[in-house]
Amino acid sequence: MNNENFNLSEKLVSSSYVRQGLQARRGHEQLIRVLLQQGKCPEEGWSESTIELFLNELAVMDSNNFLGNCGVGEREGRVASGLVARRHYRLIHGIGRSGDIAAVQPKAAGSSLLNKITNSVVLDVLKFTGVRSVSTCFVVPMATGMSLTLCFLTLRHRRPGARYILWPRIDQKSCFKSMVTAGFEPVVIENVLEGDELRTNMEEVERKIEELGAENILLEELAVLCAKHDIPHIVNNAYGMQSSKCMHLIQQGARVGRIDAFVQSLDKNFMVPVGGAIIAGFDENFIKEISKMYPGRASASPSLDVLITLLTLGANGYKKLLAERKELYGHLAQELSALAERHGERLLHTPHNPISLAMSLNHLQTHSTAAVTQLGSMLFTRQVSGARVVPLGVEQTVSGHTFRGFMSHTDAYPCPYLNAASAIGITKDDITLCIKRLDKCLKSLSKEASAEKSESGPPAEDVEDQTVP
Amino acid sequence: MNNENFNLSEKLVSSSYVRQGLQARRGHEQLIRVLLQQGKCPEEGWSESTIELFLNELAVMDSNNFLGNCGVGEREGRVASGLVARRHYRLIHGIGRSGDIAAVQPKAAGSSLLNKITNSVVLDVLKFTGVRSVSTCFVVPMATGMSLTLCFLTLRHRRPGARYILWPRIDQKSCFKSMVTAGFEPVVIENVLEGDELRTNMEEVERKIEELGAENILLEELAVLCAKHDIPHIVNNAYGMQSSKCMHLIQQGARVGRIDAFVQSLDKNFMVPVGGAIIAGFDENFIKEISKMYPGRASASPSLDVLITLLTLGANGYKKLLAERKELYGHLAQELSALAERHGERLLHTPHNPISLAMSLNHLQTHSTAAVTQLGSMLFTRQVSGARVVPLGVEQTVSGHTFRGFMSHTDAYPCPYLNAASAIGITKDDITLCIKRLDKCLKSLSKEASAEKSESGPPAEDVEDQTVP
Amino acid sequence: MNNENFNLSEKLVSSSYVRQGLQARRGHEQLIRVLLQQGKCPEEGWSESTIELFLNELAVMDSNNFLGNCGVGEREGRVASGLVARRHYRLIHGIGRSGDIAAVQPKAAGSSLLNKITNSVVLDVLKFTGVRSVSTCFVVPMATGMSLTLCFLTLRHRRPGARYILWPRIDQKSCFKSMVTAGFEPVVIENVLEGDELRTNMEEVERKIEELGAENILLEELAVLCAKHDIPHIVNNAYGMQSSKCMHLIQQGARVGRIDAFVQSLDKNFMVPVGGAIIAGFDENFIKEISKMYPGRASASPSLDVLITLLTLGANGYKKLLAERKELYGHLAQELSALAERHGERLLHTPHNPISLAMSLNHLQTHSTAAVTQLGSMLFTRQVSGARVVPLGVEQTVSGHTFRGFMSHTDAYPCPYLNAASAIGITKDDITLCIKRLDKCLKSLSKEASAEKSESGPPAEDVEDQTVP
Amino acid sequence: MNNENFNLSEKLVSSSYVRQGLQARRGHEQLIRVLLQQGKCPEEGWSESTIELFLNELAVMDSNNFLGNCGVGEREGRVASGLVARRHYRLIHGIGRSGDIAAVQPKAAGSSLLNKITNSVVLDVLKFTGVRSVSTCFVVPMATGMSLTLCFLTLRHRRPGARYILWPRIDQKSCFKSMVTAGFEPVVIENVLEGDELRTNMEEVERKIEELGAENILLEELAVLCAKHDIPHIVNNAYGMQSSKCMHLIQQGARVGRIDAFVQSLDKNFMVPVGGAIIAGFDENFIKEISKMYPGRASASPSLDVLITLLTLGANGYKKLLAERKELYGHLAQELSALAERHGERLLHTPHNPISLAMSLNHLQTHSTAAVTQLGSMLFTRQVSGARVVPLGVEQTVSGHTFRGFMSHTDAYPCPYLNAASAIGITKDDITLCIKRLDKCLKSLSKEASAEKSESGPPAEDVEDQTVP
Repeated sequence: MNNENFNLSEKLVSSSYVRQGLQARRGHEQLIRVLLQQGKCPEEGWSESTIELFLNELAVMDSNNFLGNCGVGEREGRVASGLVARRHYRLIHGIGRSGDIAAVQPKAAGSSLLNKITNSVVLDVLKFTGVRSVSTCFVVPMATGMSLTLCFLTLRHRRPGARYILWPRIDQKSCFKSMVTAGFEPVVIENVLEGDELRTNMEEVERKIEELGAENILLEELAVLCAKHDIPHIVNNAYGMQSSKCMHLIQQGARVGRIDAFVQSLDKNFMVPVGGAIIAGFDENFIKEISKMYPGRASASPSLDVLITLLTLGANGYKKLLAERKELYGHLAQELSALAERHGERLLHTPHNPISLAMSLNHLQTHSTAAVTQLGSMLFTRQVSGARVVPLGVEQTVSGHTFRGFMSHTDAYPCPYLNAASAIGITKDDITLCIKRLDKCLKSLSKEASAEKSESGPPAEDVEDQTVP
Repeated sequence: MNNENFNLSEKLVSSSYVRQGLQARRGHEQLIRVLLQQGKCPEEGWSESTIELFLNELAVMDSNNFLGNCGVGEREGRVASGLVARRHYRLIHGIGRSGDIAAVQPKAAGSSLLNKITNSVVLDVLKFTGVRSVSTCFVVPMATGMSLTLCFLTLRHRRPGARYILWPRIDQKSCFKSMVTAGFEPVVIENVLEGDELRTNMEEVERKIEELGAENILLEELAVLCAKHDIPHIVNNAYGMQSSKCMHLIQQGARVGRIDAFVQSLDKNFMVPVGGAIIAGFDENFIKEISKMYPGRASASPSLDVLITLLTLGANGYKKLLAERKELYGHLAQELSALAERHGERLLHTPHNPISLAMSLNHLQTHSTAAVTQLGSMLFTRQVSGARVVPLGVEQTVSGHTFRGFMSHTDAYPCPYLNAASAIGITKDDITLCIKRLDKCLKSLSKEASAEKSESGPPAEDVEDQTVP
Repeated sequence: MNNENFNLSEKLVSSSYVRQGLQARRGHEQLIRVLLQQGKCPEEGWSESTIELFLNELAVMDSNNFLGNCGVGEREGRVASGLVARRHYRLIHGIGRSGDIAAVQPKAAGSSLLNKITNSVVLDVLKFTGVRSVSTCFVVPMATGMSLTLCFLTLRHRRPGARYILWPRIDQKSCFKSMVTAGFEPVVIENVLEGDELRTNMEEVERKIEELGAENILLEELAVLCAKHDIPHIVNNAYGMQSSKCMHLIQQGARVGRIDAFVQSLDKNFMVPVGGAIIAGFDENFIKEISKMYPGRASASPSLDVLITLLTLGANGYKKLLAERKELYGHLAQELSALAERHGERLLHTPHNPISLAMSLNHLQTHSTAAVTQLGSMLFTRQVSGARVVPLGVEQTVSGHTFRGFMSHTDAYPCPYLNAASAIGITKDDITLCIKRLDKCLKSLSKEASAEKSESGPPAEDVEDQTVP
Repeated sequence: MNNENFNLSEKLVSSSYVRQGLQARRGHEQLIRVLLQQGKCPEEGWSESTIELFLNELAVMDSNNFLGNCGVGEREGRVASGLVARRHYRLIHGIGRSGDIAAVQPKAAGSSLLNKITNSVVLDVLKFTGVRSVSTCFVVPMATGMSLTLCFLTLRHRRPGARYILWPRIDQKSCFKSMVTAGFEPVVIENVLEGDELRTNMEEVERKIEELGAENILLEELAVLCAKHDIPHIVNNAYGMQSSKCMHLIQQGARVGRIDAFVQSLDKNFMVPVGGAIIAGFDENFIKEISKMYPGRASASPSLDVLITLLTLGANGYKKLLAERKELYGHLAQELSALAERHGERLLHTPHNPISLAMSLNHLQTHSTAAVTQLGSMLFTRQVSGARVVPLGVEQTVSGHTFRGFMSHTDAYPCPYLNAASAIGITKDDITLCIKRLDKCLKSLSKEASAEKSESGPPAEDVEDQTVP
């Protein structure tokens, strides 16, 4: 309420109480002021009450909520369903304009503010999680893959003649598709095995660069190569924000070499619903160019989700989640290792992957490949989600390219294995339950060494989104 | 509650009352059954209570809401903020999979159902609003422009050699950009003036086809040409669903010629928040191919909005909105015509545009071009949104192409004019207020014939999303 | 947001748009200003957006929402469940204080304002619905019956010697109990039959007054008697607010005679959840005395509901509902009369009851009393709620007093009948469905004249809340 | 969804995923089953998702939500405002019937279940918090004071001749008023001072019993006296549920003596909004009699709040809150004691009060009584809520009775003091902030020993709800 209304209230209720109410209101306003002024993720999280107050204030500034508005355009932010209006806090106009997803809308000052502030707060988080020299970023309401496509389409305008993308293999369909959709031809760089771990084959990359002279992807050393050969470099940082190691590599890559843009998923890093990504980079002009490539306004829903989430958590809350994740990674490694040992298997040694872990499944393989697949089905049925088995010898064709040993990121990984990740938001209970159920499944499978009837469940090749072990 | 729980309830509350409660529950279940069975928009709208019951049921089927789930993947549908979880009805997993935006997710049976049902209900609406022979469609959480881009990218894979899109001019930035972003070169076909109205220059289109042999866009006669020359034909049906005339033209075009896909905006046709589109077509394989081009999962938010809205309205409610819109179009034409006459102007004669209308602004022009621009500012300040002025001689460069007479869809329209649309959801009050305020502005401008101080407001060239007058 | 924050916003988003947002905010503030200033129900209803803005503003003023508050009392408005906090808009402190339900709370300026404003708005509605000279009122979170008890308890303090309440019979349990609970002895004044209609036996009332010299209840003429004999007069106006006739009678009664307080139900008159009442009167001191009788703070929930509802409807919306109710009363009378005729029955002639109607059930009675009861069960099963059958000869003991012919308000009404009411919120569909189903039931009962198997359903004596036919 | 709908879903989405969804649904149903079967507070709290599912299921059973219902009664649970409907989960019919607040409503099986289950769950909590032999209880939507009044009114019917209530003094207005409102004459038993602590004067109680022979109030020894003299005994257990000591005393009192009913506040014990109480006792008949005294239906809102809260917390969550409270009581005692020492004061020795603490304010008093009052104002202004100062010599008249030394529960307590409580929900931060601010205030007051200007704030006599130190 404004001062006039507070004054009127003093006639109804003792003025000392009203004045205290006014002072309390200023407390909320003060938090909003700091946010607007600094554009940073607040240190301490806000209460739901402050957040909703703020969102309501933003909504009031959009023309669809003007009390005296009359609309005679074809896009007036009208909403037919009250349920829909409410769940969007009456912010209906989306973000951006025809020309630019980051642009301000005349009809929607509130939604425009939301967009600006969200991008600014997310930039702050990118900085404090490790990429200190990032210069700009924006939230885009598209999956990581489609966001990568947008980056590639932008590069196409810069380099009309380019045809290839050098792509160190990672068995995730949408990553591969993002290049194909953009009309490029991916050149797959097969990984090399070092111990249990797969690493990018740098020699092969350089050989291909010399052979093709084209644009490509990946980390640190790659960035140096890219700089040397003047090749654009886009990093798929999918769920890397939650790992200080990944963020550090990007920061380093940009310092010593060249990274044009790095793209990360909102849902995987911020515990929000699927459907948004952050496109970030070190050269403001290039990122702006990408934002101008998106033709039309876009959904504000992912921006709203990530803003609410970051205001709720505050920087401290987010850092705490990251610290817990890291700690539980250690716990998961320990538990998985112990379990593996009990079953005559071992935890694969993958020190460069700070999030995912894998244990070998050699014994199951000796029974039959079906047993490995069946383990996946059993875990699914027992509500262990995300623990994926990777059998040997799976072949999969994606957009015309056939991958051998699909899901293992290499043609012939030495053994089948099971993957588990310590991602942001994981709890100790998740790990305890997973280990317990996994243990039971393995016992049960080793008993019926000659697997008779396979349980229902999705066949292994149905499983997606694999990570480098 | 299941039967067991109803039985237990009978011990607490008289069984005849509980039995009636059970019967009532069946009423809701019955509505859901019909929806699942027929996949059509229900004739009568559902109550909020049935809708929320249904959405809660869907959410319960997603793994993030399993009571005994343990998640060790990197994408488990965890949500950090209660506000966010609630506003999405705890449906967190989005829609689609890496490979296909229409695919089913093992972890999220509820979200997958939501996606399937939404697409099915929307298909039904496409049919009953006029495109009876449409075979398939899907909702995509991207703006119309970006959705067109996705169509073009798909066509690129079918025709790797294609370079041009024939584009009968329409001055809307995102439409133009959708082609550029996809990496094509738009070939602008300038419109021809017939009376007040602009029409596609069919001779020029055919000439260009012969000159270039390429892919292109637009309606009925175009479809025949496309069929004749085997050229893919994508229709930007932005807000055309609300007009039976537009829908009829698409139906006819597909019958007598060729239409590969037609794309429409969700927010403009269904009164939902900005950010979604429908990609539809007559050849299931081609549409499926497009849906497989989207790399990665996508936001379920636009699907959720449109489903809630259509269940709330029912087919009858939606048809009623369309009928009201049509009736108010007549009313707006009448009022605008009368106003124009009072001010020595006239309603432009544009019988082929069933949604937008325009009145000439010749007198303002005689004062100065600034006066025309100022009218736009004055309307903005007076909360008339969507009524756009189109001055003469505006030049605008979009993605490198310079348009003369921008916003008027032609290089040199004979007079400046003001645009107003009768779009879905418009009310009689909107029209009354708009006419009243417009009248005042025109009077005030004609008084101060020599415009002194211009009011604040966005300059005319800031205005976007123009329609063919 | 305050001005400082608007200024900061202008650095992020074009200042002309932000200024328009600020102006829009003032629109909402202006509505709130008028409400605070005038304390009246606004003519036009508010949007949900304004209402929620207002409620959030009130909540911010309560100490449980102070950002810097520390609480070391035993009642700090803490809330354990987020669901609970939200559904009360974080207004947790209730209304009133130990001493007075209308008093202001130091810890809760917002809740105190809510209380004051609600009472003020409700007073305005009492005035414009007919009781123009009402001087004060307050909403109390108790049923009508318990609210009557509170009035009686207050009177007990004024008249320590009083023992009786003269009570013109009306067969509603809670009305009767309200006197017994307060420790008084109700003296039942049996009604007299005039045509089909029951009227208060005024001679008997006067006789009893002379015999007992005590306090009592009812309308107009009664008020004169009360004034003449200096007897406190409490009117149970349960759902009378929705009838201009009832309101007029109270206005008249107070003008020519004496009415100490009149009590009405919130849910029955304002379409809000059960649980609140309005205690109103013409002598501010007496009403204040009642409000001071409530020991302790009370739930703000009914006040919140009625305030939201009245702000949503506005005075015009509420009057429209009343007008529709009245019109549908005529429609119901017509339909019921026609139906009665078709079944050889008749609509009872009860011109003094502006809300309820009754049709005779003589033919059913000739079959058996069970048939009358069965009709009630059949209607219940067929989801006709509120249409109650009144068989002959039901005896019921309430708080020790046995009523013959219970539910008919008299010992021996000439015929059994069926009751239906046109209450606020009723729709034409309700009436159509009711008549249709009733018709079917009557036909089916007359076929199986010798009723074999009775259907399940609550026996007639279970039915409550009868009205004078 | 029922089985048929799950089957239909399998045609849209892979049946193994749907079957897992069905299994997940059974998980929620299972929790509900246990609740219905056992009627106990679940050990572990439920997720919001289960709670809302359950409440929606209940709502579906109420006739106002029947899809085919037609209503022609005067109370049909219609709701004018969507905001209101939603915030009550569409449970509109309240609880109870005319005859009995615990009765089942034919029109509202869902609300009736809610009522039964809430009372049953609350009874379970009463048991496990210490009153193991309690036999029945019910939630009533009235403040503790009004609930006590209802108990007294019930007793009046049992003992028509009774006039007095023996009342060991406790300076809380609503407690005193609850007796006066019920029409009784409170006989104040002044407390006796033992060390710093006030204790009930048992000799005086017995003397009064002999003098008057009447009904009265208080703990353990009192219960024995009551049993001996056959005097009804009502315990005001306001916020005693949170203390195992208080609950133990009631359990003991009922075992060795007589307790007819004990009444506790919902908001103070369960962290829900103000406005409800629990009336409980050991003789089912007497408690039932009280529930039948409430004339009319009542608000379900407090029942809904407490049910949501207890399902959210679970028994373990609630016990955890109690344990934390107890621990923080120790912490508060320590901190307050240290602070007192620093300022030359002392923590009063009140070992029998397990919730509230007090520190002397002798030094302030030597300055002036105004200084003591001013401290209260200063704390209020600094957002320390609930820390109340008790000056010497305050006189207050409540319902005609004048109390000397009001707020100190005795005519002449030896020193002024400051009160602070460790009530349920208190946090360590609350204590830290309170001590810090209190320290500052005391320092500032001792500096300006000659207090010049008093700050604004509520005068001390405005403060209410005092507790025995």
